[in-house]
Amino acid sequence: MNDNVEIIEVGPRDGLQNEPAVTLEQRIELVNLLSDTGLTHIEAASFVSPKWVPQMADADLLMQRIERRSGIRYSALTPNLKGFETAVASQADEVAVFGAASEGFSQRNINCSIAESLARFEPVMAAARAQKLPVRGYVSCTLGCPIDGEIEIPKVADVAERLYQMGCYEISLGDTVGVGTPAKAKAMVAAVAERVPVSALALHFHDTYGQALANVLACLDLGVRRIDSAVAGLGGCPYAPGASGNLATEDLVYMLHGLGMDTGVDLERLIIAGNHICQQLNKAPQSKVAQAILAKQHKQQHKECVS
Amino acid sequence: MNDNVEIIEVGPRDGLQNEPAVTLEQRIELVNLLSDTGLTHIEAASFVSPKWVPQMADADLLMQRIERRSGIRYSALTPNLKGFETAVASQADEVAVFGAASEGFSQRNINCSIAESLARFEPVMAAARAQKLPVRGYVSCTLGCPIDGEIEIPKVADVAERLYQMGCYEISLGDTVGVGTPAKAKAMVAAVAERVPVSALALHFHDTYGQALANVLACLDLGVRRIDSAVAGLGGCPYAPGASGNLATEDLVYMLHGLGMDTGVDLERLIIAGNHICQQLNKAPQSKVAQAILAKQHKQQHKECVS
Repeated sequence: MNDNVEIIEVGPRDGLQNEPAVTLEQRIELVNLLSDTGLTHIEAASFVSPKWVPQMADADLLMQRIERRSGIRYSALTPNLKGFETAVASQADEVAVFGAASEGFSQRNINCSIAESLARFEPVMAAARAQKLPVRGYVSCTLGCPIDGEIEIPKVADVAERLYQMGCYEISLGDTVGVGTPAKAKAMVAAVAERVPVSALALHFHDTYGQALANVLACLDLGVRRIDSAVAGLGGCPYAPGASGNLATEDLVYMLHGLGMDTGVDLERLIIAGNHICQQLNKAPQSKVAQAILAKQHKQQHKECVS
Repeated sequence: MNDNVEIIEVGPRDGLQNEPAVTLEQRIELVNLLSDTGLTHIEAASFVSPKWVPQMADADLLMQRIERRSGIRYSALTPNLKGFETAVASQADEVAVFGAASEGFSQRNINCSIAESLARFEPVMAAARAQKLPVRGYVSCTLGCPIDGEIEIPKVADVAERLYQMGCYEISLGDTVGVGTPAKAKAMVAAVAERVPVSALALHFHDTYGQALANVLACLDLGVRRIDSAVAGLGGCPYAPGASGNLATEDLVYMLHGLGMDTGVDLERLIIAGNHICQQLNKAPQSKVAQAILAKQHKQQHKECVS
């Protein structure tokens, strides 16, 4: 079994897209700090309309002004051809399209059916082929939907396979609302892996119910070696204050390294990056690894506790 | 594989022992609320000297004044014969002794070697035999020690086996500082299970580095079906403010139920109990399940977020 895991850091995009007060400078600085950690893939921006997601405005400026490091792919979300063209002009190394496994969620999130959403991606896929730009495909709500509730696993496999057939080099399977548990996550990924090579699958599990790391662990068994996460566990829902966001990259790295797997990521630098953006947003890092190590650093005479 | 899991709720003891401001009334109220959740084993008190742990003072009053429910065992920590006798007089249903797998930790925590600590338990074990009272044995630092660092697995197995031979009906394997990761946790428990029947083993994993639930998942594979946790993730270290405490019972229950396992616990009542004590302590529940469900309840028009 291959013990190298690539982490796709989604903090600057998925992590910050619901932060009302984040500035362009802060977003750029976060990407630059993350570029210093050994990460090789950073989802840096989203070319959705700023009318819908003002926090992600000026994606073109961000992509132009970040300090790029060789060996790192800086990717961006592109919902349509217009977004794609701006992303290309801004020198995104790759782009991502996003579909849902839930009809209800697709309707509410992008105002069309799943089939319609896939049809809308066709021009983006064609343009990307022409530009030889890799396209990543997200499937949201793979383990449950806030509108439709339970999602049938074959539906997830259908959408994932369709995106793969359309030319996405990788399919990121999202537990958008973080409701999944390990056996179910494993069953879903196993079913998708019958239709899409497991080497082309990534996990994108939110930690709303504290299950993300356990869900990842269960799916590592299947051979998945590509995992999305956000530094400091950034993310969360503006409509549910207090609910947590993405799986924290620090906690993921800690587990993977403990399992003897290699990520290439320097945990201390990662904690610095996460702590920096959290200070700017005036919130505590949601990573327990970060909390523990920062607490240790802050206390000169650290003493551990009795069981 | 047996799919019934018994949860040993340690919130009132391990969870509160480091809370500087907790009152006897609050501790009693927490035990009473927990008695309403379907839990069958609540570690309610500690008969250590109030000189050392003032938060756990008046354990006799607590044991006398809680509203006991049939079908629930109310247990207490008893470091020595004096503590044991008071626990018996206070009608504890069972008691617990605590040893360490680390010499350095044993010295700092109870001021004697591991061998000496086991010798000190002998009179407690003899008295418990005479009273026909079950004794639980804790082993701390099974996955690492703040003083000695790495702990050799055979050392853990030695101490666990010794406690079992002395008459402890169950051995609770503690990751006291929460540093373990899944493969290591599984290897440790597998090694102990060669010396002590797996049905007599419990997991007691702290969540300092966010790994506790994943560690539990890995060990369920071995057939362990007894798990310690604390409602609202209570606990943590007074010397490391910000660092988190025990595995949250809510998150554990959510995972186990998602795996199709039965705990007998009502998650909603558990959240009520955890939220109540956290409000009194003026802190947020550390359980992500509790955070998510409370946030949902607080927001009338809840809308989920885009991946």
